[in-house]
Parts: sequence; C-alpha cells; structure tokens
Amino acid sequence: MGALDFLFHPKQIAVIGASGSPRKIGRVILDNIVKSGYRGRIYPVNPQEKEIAGLKCYPAAHQIGTPVELAVVAVPADRSLQVARECGAAGVKGLIVISAGFKEVGSEGLKQERELLAVCRQYDMRMVGPNCVGLMDTHTPLNASFARGFPGQGNITFISQSGAMLVSILDWSFAMGLGFSRFISLGNKADLNEIDFIESSAADPQTKVILCYLEDVTDGERFIRVCTAAGKRKPIIILKSGTSTAGAQAASSHTGALAGSNRAYETAFRQSGVLQVSQMSELFDLAGAFAVQPPPAGDRVAIVTNAGGPAIVTTDAVERSGLKMARFERETIDALHLNLPPEANIYNPVDILGDAGVERYRFALEKVLQDQNVDSALVLLCPAAVTEPEKTARVILELKDAFPRKPVFAVYMGGKSLARGKEMLTLGGVPTFTFPETAVKTLEGIVRFSRAALETAPLPPLRLEGADQNAVKAAFYDVLKDRRVVLLGHESSRVMAAYGIPASPVRLASSAEEAAAISREIGFPVVLKISSPRIAHKTDVGGVEIGLHNDRSVERAYKKIMERVQRFLPDAPIYGVEVQKMVDEGVEVIIGMSRDLQFGPLVVFGLGGIYVNLIEDVSFRLASALTTRKAVEELIAETKAYTLLKGYRGKKTADMEALIDAIFRTARLVLDFEEISEMDINPLRVHTRGATALDVKMTIERVH
Amino acid sequence: MGALDFLFHPKQIAVIGASGSPRKIGRVILDNIVKSGYRGRIYPVNPQEKEIAGLKCYPAAHQIGTPVELAVVAVPADRSLQVARECGAAGVKGLIVISAGFKEVGSEGLKQERELLAVCRQYDMRMVGPNCVGLMDTHTPLNASFARGFPGQGNITFISQSGAMLVSILDWSFAMGLGFSRFISLGNKADLNEIDFIESSAADPQTKVILCYLEDVTDGERFIRVCTAAGKRKPIIILKSGTSTAGAQAASSHTGALAGSNRAYETAFRQSGVLQVSQMSELFDLAGAFAVQPPPAGDRVAIVTNAGGPAIVTTDAVERSGLKMARFERETIDALHLNLPPEANIYNPVDILGDAGVERYRFALEKVLQDQNVDSALVLLCPAAVTEPEKTARVILELKDAFPRKPVFAVYMGGKSLARGKEMLTLGGVPTFTFPETAVKTLEGIVRFSRAALETAPLPPLRLEGADQNAVKAAFYDVLKDRRVVLLGHESSRVMAAYGIPASPVRLASSAEEAAAISREIGFPVVLKISSPRIAHKTDVGGVEIGLHNDRSVERAYKKIMERVQRFLPDAPIYGVEVQKMVDEGVEVIIGMSRDLQFGPLVVFGLGGIYVNLIEDVSFRLASALTTRKAVEELIAETKAYTLLKGYRGKKTADMEALIDAIFRTARLVLDFEEISEMDINPLRVHTRGATALDVKMTIERVH
Repeated sequence: MGALDFLFHPKQIAVIGASGSPRKIGRVILDNIVKSGYRGRIYPVNPQEKEIAGLKCYPAAHQIGTPVELAVVAVPADRSLQVARECGAAGVKGLIVISAGFKEVGSEGLKQERELLAVCRQYDMRMVGPNCVGLMDTHTPLNASFARGFPGQGNITFISQSGAMLVSILDWSFAMGLGFSRFISLGNKADLNEIDFIESSAADPQTKVILCYLEDVTDGERFIRVCTAAGKRKPIIILKSGTSTAGAQAASSHTGALAGSNRAYETAFRQSGVLQVSQMSELFDLAGAFAVQPPPAGDRVAIVTNAGGPAIVTTDAVERSGLKMARFERETIDALHLNLPPEANIYNPVDILGDAGVERYRFALEKVLQDQNVDSALVLLCPAAVTEPEKTARVILELKDAFPRKPVFAVYMGGKSLARGKEMLTLGGVPTFTFPETAVKTLEGIVRFSRAALETAPLPPLRLEGADQNAVKAAFYDVLKDRRVVLLGHESSRVMAAYGIPASPVRLASSAEEAAAISREIGFPVVLKISSPRIAHKTDVGGVEIGLHNDRSVERAYKKIMERVQRFLPDAPIYGVEVQKMVDEGVEVIIGMSRDLQFGPLVVFGLGGIYVNLIEDVSFRLASALTTRKAVEELIAETKAYTLLKGYRGKKTADMEALIDAIFRTARLVLDFEEISEMDINPLRVHTRGATALDVKMTIERVH
Repeated sequence: MGALDFLFHPKQIAVIGASGSPRKIGRVILDNIVKSGYRGRIYPVNPQEKEIAGLKCYPAAHQIGTPVELAVVAVPADRSLQVARECGAAGVKGLIVISAGFKEVGSEGLKQERELLAVCRQYDMRMVGPNCVGLMDTHTPLNASFARGFPGQGNITFISQSGAMLVSILDWSFAMGLGFSRFISLGNKADLNEIDFIESSAADPQTKVILCYLEDVTDGERFIRVCTAAGKRKPIIILKSGTSTAGAQAASSHTGALAGSNRAYETAFRQSGVLQVSQMSELFDLAGAFAVQPPPAGDRVAIVTNAGGPAIVTTDAVERSGLKMARFERETIDALHLNLPPEANIYNPVDILGDAGVERYRFALEKVLQDQNVDSALVLLCPAAVTEPEKTARVILELKDAFPRKPVFAVYMGGKSLARGKEMLTLGGVPTFTFPETAVKTLEGIVRFSRAALETAPLPPLRLEGADQNAVKAAFYDVLKDRRVVLLGHESSRVMAAYGIPASPVRLASSAEEAAAISREIGFPVVLKISSPRIAHKTDVGGVEIGLHNDRSVERAYKKIMERVQRFLPDAPIYGVEVQKMVDEGVEVIIGMSRDLQFGPLVVFGLGGIYVNLIEDVSFRLASALTTRKAVEELIAETKAYTLLKGYRGKKTADMEALIDAIFRTARLVLDFEEISEMDINPLRVHTRGATALDVKMTIERVH
C-alpha cells in the first residue's frame, strides 16, 4: 500500500465542523462522503450536535474513543489549531484542512498556517491544504470534498493548485463522460504538495495518467527527482500558469506563490520527462488518449480517409507536428492497389474515396496497421450517402484490439449523423475528434511521452579533474574585500584557470610601459581592455584596442583607451588596462548561467558574440543535468551554433571535445559555488583545436 | 442586385437529370430545392419521365418553353456537353454542374471540361463546378445541392474547395447551432472560382463574414485585388491546405530556399487583409465571433473573474497573443476598490471572488466597460455554491448591448451546471467558450481584422527615376547568346547599374596582369573572385581573395585562385577573375526575389552574409506591394536586421534611405522583367552613407 493510503483509503473519517444545517460546508462534506459510497466508519464532530444525518456526533476528535485515520476540517481558521491538537491526540494520521484564512490572507494568516503545521509535525500527522476543496478517490470510493458531484470511475488523476479549476473541471467532466481515479485540491500546500501527490499517484494502481494544474513548484530538486522516476512509468502532464509576466503578477497576488522564472520551469519539466501543455483543453485531450491507448513505438502515422480535402488538412497537421507520415512497405502498396478502386490513393494518406463503405475501411486500416513502417493510425470519416459511421466504428474498435501496440485515433468530421459512431468509439477506447488538428496534436503528445520514456538509463557521469576550489575562494575573497560583487577580467581569469576552463589569460597593467612589458612576456599580438568596476560594455566606451603587434602600438593603445574613457566617464574608477593575448579564429559561442530560486543554476548555450541577444539562438539546461557527455552534446545540438561548429559551408569542424569540456566544467563551477549568481562566457571561441574564453563576466552574492 | 444573382436568387431552376428514383442524385437535388422552401419555378428535366414528385417533367431544357435562369446538372459527364448546349439554347444564365468525371480523372476528363467551358462561353453562361456538391442560400431560401439538410439562417458564407469538407461542416453545424447565409462548393473551378464568390458574398447584404477552405488560388493578381477591397468591409477567413506538401525544391538561391511555395500564399493573404488560420476549429470560432460582435477599437482586454487560477491562465493566454491586458484608469480602480470586498483584486484581471453573485458581476463588468482604456472584455465564470450562471448571462447580454462598440466574450468553465447559461449567451450573441485559451485566440482574430481594416489609404507611390531598360535587355541578350541562364558578376553588375541599384562594379580580367591593371584603374584595395558559370559558391572552392593592396598581391592572388580552382574543379569552364573594389564597412543585408507561379515576384529582406539561411531573419512582400516608402519601411522593420541598421550597441545608424531605395528599385526591376526567375543581392552592405551590393546572383528564364 502507498504512503498516503490514510488519505485515499482511510479506514475511518472524522468530519470536524459537520453541521445540522444542510448548507454549511462541513455538512456538504459529510453528505459527499456518505453519497460517494464510502465503506469505512464516518464520525461527525461538532460539540453543539448529538446526531447529524443519522450519524452519531462527537464533541471532539479525541472523544470519539476509537482510532480515526483521516479528519476533514471545516472550522474557522482561528479554531483550527485547537482542532488539530485534538486530532493529534486522537491518533489521526491525515488532516484535510478545508478552512480558509491562512497564508492567502496575509502575514497573520501565514503565522497561523505555520503554527498549524507545527502541530501536525508534533503529532506526526500529514496535512492537505489548508484553504483547499478536498480530495476524491473514485475507486475507494471517497469524496472528501465540498465539490458538487462525484466523477465517473476512470484512471486519470487530476491535481490542482486552484480549487475553482478543480470544481470547473469536475463539472465539465460530467458532460464529457471522462472518468477519473483521483481529484486532489492542493490549497496552500503547507505540508503535502504536488510532489507528494505525484509520487503517490504514480504508485496508485488505479491511475494511468497524472494531470496537474500548477502555479509554482515547492521544491525544485525533489520535483525533478520524483517526476523523473514517476514519469517513466506514467505520463505526467502539467499546465503551469503564470508563464507571462502579467500572469506571474497575478500568481503572486493570488496565493502568495513565489513564481520562479518560466524558462527554468520549462527546462525542468522537459528534463524530468513531464509533458508541459499550454492550453487546458490539451490537458484533457491528452489524458483521454493516454487513458485508453498504448504509447506507440515511433512517430510514423498512417492515415485512412474517405475524403481528399480533410486528408490534406490532416497531412499538413502531421508535417507541422513532430510526427512523420509513414512510408508504406511495397507489400502494403501492392495489396492496396489490388483491392481498392483505381481512383483510390494507395500511398499515405490512403484515400478510399467518398463511396467507401465499412468493408473498404476494414481492408485499408488492417493493411496499414500490419505494415512494419506504421506506428499509429488515424482514421478520417466524412459523412457521405453510403458512409456507415457506426459499422465503421465497430471495425475500428476490432482492429484496435487486434493491434494492441499501435494506437488508433479517429476523426469523425461532422455532427448529428456521426454522433452515435463517435460515442461508440469514445466508449470503446479510441480517442475521437471532430477536427483533424486536435487529433494530430494529441497523438503527437503520446509519441513525445513514449520517446521520453524509452530513453536509456543515464550514462556514467563525466568526471571533473583538477578543480582547485581554494583558488576560486581566494579570487572571490579579493573581490569581496574590495566591496564589489562583479569580478574584473583578471579575477574571473583566475576562476577559469582554477576550474580548467580554457581562457586567454588576462593581466592587469597600470601603466603603458607595464602593458608593453606584459605583452612581451605573453607574446604578441595582444588586446588591451579598460579595467573598471563601472564599465560593463567596454567596446561601447572605446575601451578596447585589438591587434597590437609591438611595444609601440601597445603603449599608444594604452594612452588612447585612457583618454577616451576619461572623456566619456570622467568619474569611473579605473584599475588599469587588461592585457590579453589575441587568440586564433574560431566559432564564437556563449556559455552563460542564471540562477533560479526553485531549480538552481540554469545554463545557457548558443551563438555568441555581440549579437547574442539579437539572434537569440540559445538552448537551456539545468546545470544539475549536465553530468554526461550525451547531455552536453544534446544541449549543443539544439542550437544553430551546432551547424557552425560542425563546419558550415566549407569551414573546418570546431573542436567539439573542448567545447563539451568547457560547458561541463562551467556547470560544475556554478553548482559548486552557489554564490555565483550570474555568469557569461561570451564569446568562447572554439578553434579547430581547443577553445578559448575571451571575455568572462561573473557576479557573486554580496556577503553581509 | 449582385452579379451572380442568377445563382443565389434565381427566378426559375431546371434540374437536369432529375429522376423518379428517390436515391438518384438528381432527385436528391430536386427534393432539396423543394424542401428548402424555394419560391421560384422548378422544372425537372428528364426525357424518360412525365412527372417527378408532382412536378411536370420536361425532356430537355430548351423544351421547357419559358425562360430559365439556373440549371443544376446531374447527368453523366459524357452527356453534359449536349445538356449544356440545350441550356444555352434555353437562355440559362447559370449552370451548376454536379457531375464528376472531368479534370479530376485525368487528361480525357480535362478535355471534356474544356469543351464544357467553351459551350458556356459560347452561350454566355457562367458555371459552378463541375464535380461539385452545389450551393445554398438560406435567405432566398435555396438548397441547390445534394448535401443532406439545410443550415439555419445566419450571416456566415462558407466557400469550400472540398465537397466532403462542405458536407462535414454542414452536418457539424446542426449540432453547434451555427447559422449560415451561404454554402458554396467550388468543385473543379473550371469557370467560377473562389474570387468570384468572395466578391459576390462581399456584396451580399445577408453575409457578414466569409470563410474559405482552399487548396489553391486561381489568379493571384485578381485574388489580391478583390480580397483587398472586400476584406475592408467584411472579414475573409481562409484555411489554405497543402502547406506542407509543397515540395521543397532544391532551390539554387538563398531566397528560393527561404521562400518555399507556401510563403507566397501567406504573404498574399496578409497583404490583402485576409485572416489565415491553420486549424479548422479556428475558422468557425472566428466566424461565430465575427457574426455577432463588433470589431473592437484596439487590443486592450479587461478580464472579470470569480476565480484566481483560471484568471492566471487567461492572462497568460492574453500575453502570449497579440492582445494586451488593459490598464485601468484611476477612476475605475477607485470605484472597484470602494465597492468590491477587500480581498478582491481590483486591477486587471478583476477577481470578484468565489462568492460573487450576479450583482458583483454587473458592477465590475460595467465599470471596466466604461473605462476608456478598455477595448474589449472577457468574463470568466467558474461554478461555485453561490454562482448564478443564468442571471449572470442575462447581465452580460444587457451590458453587451449597452456598450455596442466593445466586444464581450464569455468563458463559462464547466459543463452541466453552466449549460443553460452558455446557451443563453450564445443565442444572445456573446461568443462563449469552455476554456479561456480559445476565447483569447478568437478575440485576437477579431482584433487583427479591425487593425487591418483601419489601415489608411495607400500613400502616393514611389517613383522610379533613371531606369535604363535597354541596358538590362542588352545584358540578358549577352547571357542568352552564351547559352547560359545564370548571370556572371560583371553581367549582373550591368543590370544593377541600369536600375540605379548601388553596387560595387565588377570587371572581368583574363590574366594576372590585366587584373592588376584594372585594380590600378578602379583603385586599391580590391577583391578577386573566380568567374565561372559552374561555380555558385565561390568561397567554398577557394575562389575568393580579399584585401589586396597592390599590383603584386593582385597578381599573386590571381594565380592562387586559378591554381585552387583548377585543382578542385579541373573541368569547370573559367571565364577569368572578377576584380571588384573593396567597400566600406556596414550592415550586411540580403535583398532577394523568388517568383511564385500564382502571385509573381516575392521579395525577401533580412540579415545577410553567409549565415542567412542559418539565421533566417527574413521578411517577405510581394514585389507588387512595395510601391510606397511606408511599405518598404515596414518590410525592413519586421526583421532583426532593423535593430542593427538603427545602430546596435553603440554602432552608427545605417543609411536607411539608401536601403529603402535599393529595395524599391529591386522590386521594380523584377516586376519589369518577368524573365528574372531568381535573384539574390547578398550581401548588400548598408553604410553610414549609401549602400553597396557586393554580390549579386541572378537567373533568367531560358528562351526557346
């Protein structure tokens, strides 16, 4: 049995705040539990009542006298603490706190919520909510919520951070005939959160697919761990709201949620094998499909249709999606050619023509499902004089059963005359749509999942050799001592060296003569750059001179830079001029990092140079995921920079090994040093052999 | 009355091929005409029958003896010619040819179709089809088709190039309660096509919105002209299929590769004010909204909701779309603050909380609709204990009428308990949705239309001065005489000069000494490039040397190029080496052209250089639209190149006038010379003052 069985399959339930008045929320909950057919003992608790709805009523939980596993609490917030203590004393294992008036109303409420949580901890109780609608399990059966109605049995779990969303979807599900295994309202997530319920539902034998509506994630690291494990067994589909800036504002004013940056969420979801959707309808289209169909082995779709126009529209949708039109084997084409009318299209999409009856559908669909090159099939049917929508539905259902490893979807384009056929298909487990685009999008979703689930076990991690943590600490110490948080070029140069990230060394000169001396030492040609904590974009103020080949040009460049900077920014503190050896040609890329509150350091990779923000050819990973060669390679391969690195239009291939190593080392650096809050290596120049960081910007946290 | 009244409001109809047998298609049509309530005279025609369905039957159209405006023809294809002649003799003005067996079955059918068209021309008859379902007008009323059922009256016209699509949508519309003014099946479009029907429906007083399902467009130029005029009065919404099947031909030019065949359609639709959609459901969501709501004055949306979660989802959708969240006036905020509960959110989205009854909805919605900063409103309702979905629907309808210039949409999130309210809203003219994303997408569509319709009249056209057409012809003549179609550098240089497009002149040298002499003449530094009709990408074979400052380096470079090219491509015919003066720094852009069969020359503009296909920062216009300064400016402004041209990160502003002039002249060149089939100016370098084309590739049609 699962860890949260006392919530979903409790042996006894107390309803604290049950009432004689049928409109009170405590009473609605009591009635819901009874009506749902719950088979355990139910104890109403209310000091003012003797009996409610024919059940004996108790003055307090600890006075029931027998063990109680679950208590549903619907009393005013200010009484909840006392109630929780009484539940604790009664040996209750789980609390569902419906009551509102906690974190969501401000700091006073937050204080109460913390106290409530402390009581739970003290008595070793787990809590759902507070400020939630409750939960349901249709297989127990149990409706421990105040929502109206109880969904049909099914194998979809819906976890919602919004109570209104849960109630809306419940109401909507009745009209759609969609079945559920569990409904869970998260409320304020003071104790139990989405991760606990994803984990629990992944272990629930009645649940085949897990849906979540989330406004934030409580613990990034655990979320990734749990979803990565759970998502391999069951699809997890998430609608994360607050993705837009304005949406994020609404999120924080709504539940006091701390909205992480959206990119980190997207990246984390993808890395954990979670399917993220952007529309509510997708959530349920996908759930409906996952609930009844197997994940296909691949992305090759066959289409069987009785109409040309809709087939073109469907083919367009397939080509726009991540799916492919299957190319049939010779045998299939020959069989179709031999048995279909001469005007039929025997290639994919297979057009069996407007006068097709059920037998033509049977023949064509069976043939394409037999084909080795077909992973799934889409059947299109438009109403015509001789069309047999119901008989055809029966045949589709038969063939679906005959090919249990190949999903079959149907598009019945029409309304009245196809209604019965649609219903038969839906009930029989074939996802059926009115328009082809939704069918294709849904099929794509289940293919995406099966691809993620098929991924092999992680490869042995890369090993970091020769990292000198003390040298990094020493560099940070010098920065902080100078009351700065932004590293200067020669300082970040020390950090790079300490972690073995190849960089062109930078040395600081405080006179033209010293600059020339350093240049002689490191070798010509060199670059000079102004060094000042106030100047971020050195080129913009004329603070850079390149291609200096001898003593004289270095000295002249030094003076020019100083003059210009003093003219543009007379008040900027100047530390001197950085001398850096010029490096070979190569592909310019960026490796960067920004730190997310929930998910930690997020690494970016892409085309580098001054146009990086203009071109926006970038890809993201959480640093924690960049542990294998393959992971780093995939990050690189998602960008256009990859095309350049491989040698674009006759250029030589860049040193991929050096780049992979630099990205891996950067990821380790930002994981090892949480105080690095932002970092840009831009550009890193990747040569035919080796790579060199030309410019490194790094910011660390202020120490108080 | 409109030009095609004899089709939609005929005074008399003959049904050729009417039959006594109730399942024959001619009989289905006859029955449909009668059942639809058509009020004119109906004449069945069939030499074998005396009377059909109580109507006197005639042996042939010309034997009816009285005038007949419209004839619907349902006889086998091989009899259609004879029938058409008889109709012509009877003075019929319009033929609807249902019969199949024409172009769609191959060359024999195409021949018959042409003969049929010739007969129509001879008798001055217009024809719908052949191979079509027929047409309907619900206001006449008339169902001159073989489709089952007749749609409810409404103001949507649906034009379909697929008969099956039309029949499917008709069937579906019954279930949706959607009303139509006309259904038109185009069939093979031998005579009348989508353009004729768009024009006719734009003039139809019963039609408010025109929907099309198209697989191709018959006449690009006329399509643009008609849609541009019609689309300002009524929204035209098109689903164009076959977007993917467009074979990506191996195009030799950058532009050809970037354009694809679909880009011309997209560009033409956009330029004509047509709303293009990519999903069938969008077509009808938009139609339903346009049919009942006014186009809003702007893009600022207010949201009123009784639930936080769904409001965040809606806000996300607004921010992802082309719409904006309205920012309320101080007055509105104060009023909301004063009258709503303290926990309510009084900023947009306005959250009137889960316990909101109808009066709170009335107050908040009225206040936001009164606000000057609000152009449209979205009302969200989730079912809760005290929610009043029907009363609230009545209030929404009242307020919609009170603010006739501001569209109001509703999202009733739920099923059973909200069904009646949804129905009231839909019938009352408020587009109502179950999920917010569809509502937002639809609202965005009507805003897009109103924006396009508001656009001011075209400005006075730019004038082309000093174009020497003879010089262009002379250059083409020399190319063709050499049995080539691709111009060499010095040849395209002549074309550029003739049209005043600034280019660095190119001269051909056939020895190292000649190259040096030319260099001295045009001035150092120079670039040398191999000249060979077989070499398109000169850099890839080592055929380019840059930065040559004196005689000796030019001579050495000449020899190096020759050596390398002879090693790599020993068989390529070599014309010599092109000598070109090196030009100033500047922003590198591409101006290109690919010619579309339907829509003529398509001009591309964007970031240039060798990475143009990698970066794909490009924008498109039909050359015919680039007639005003504003049009050219808008083309430029859509790209990231624009940011660079304006002076990115401290760089100087590039010469926008010179660029606009170069684009305009290129557009005129490709319009004036239809024989130019492809063209790339890449890069055009735009300097602080002036611009210079560095490399021009041009291909002309072969002359037979």
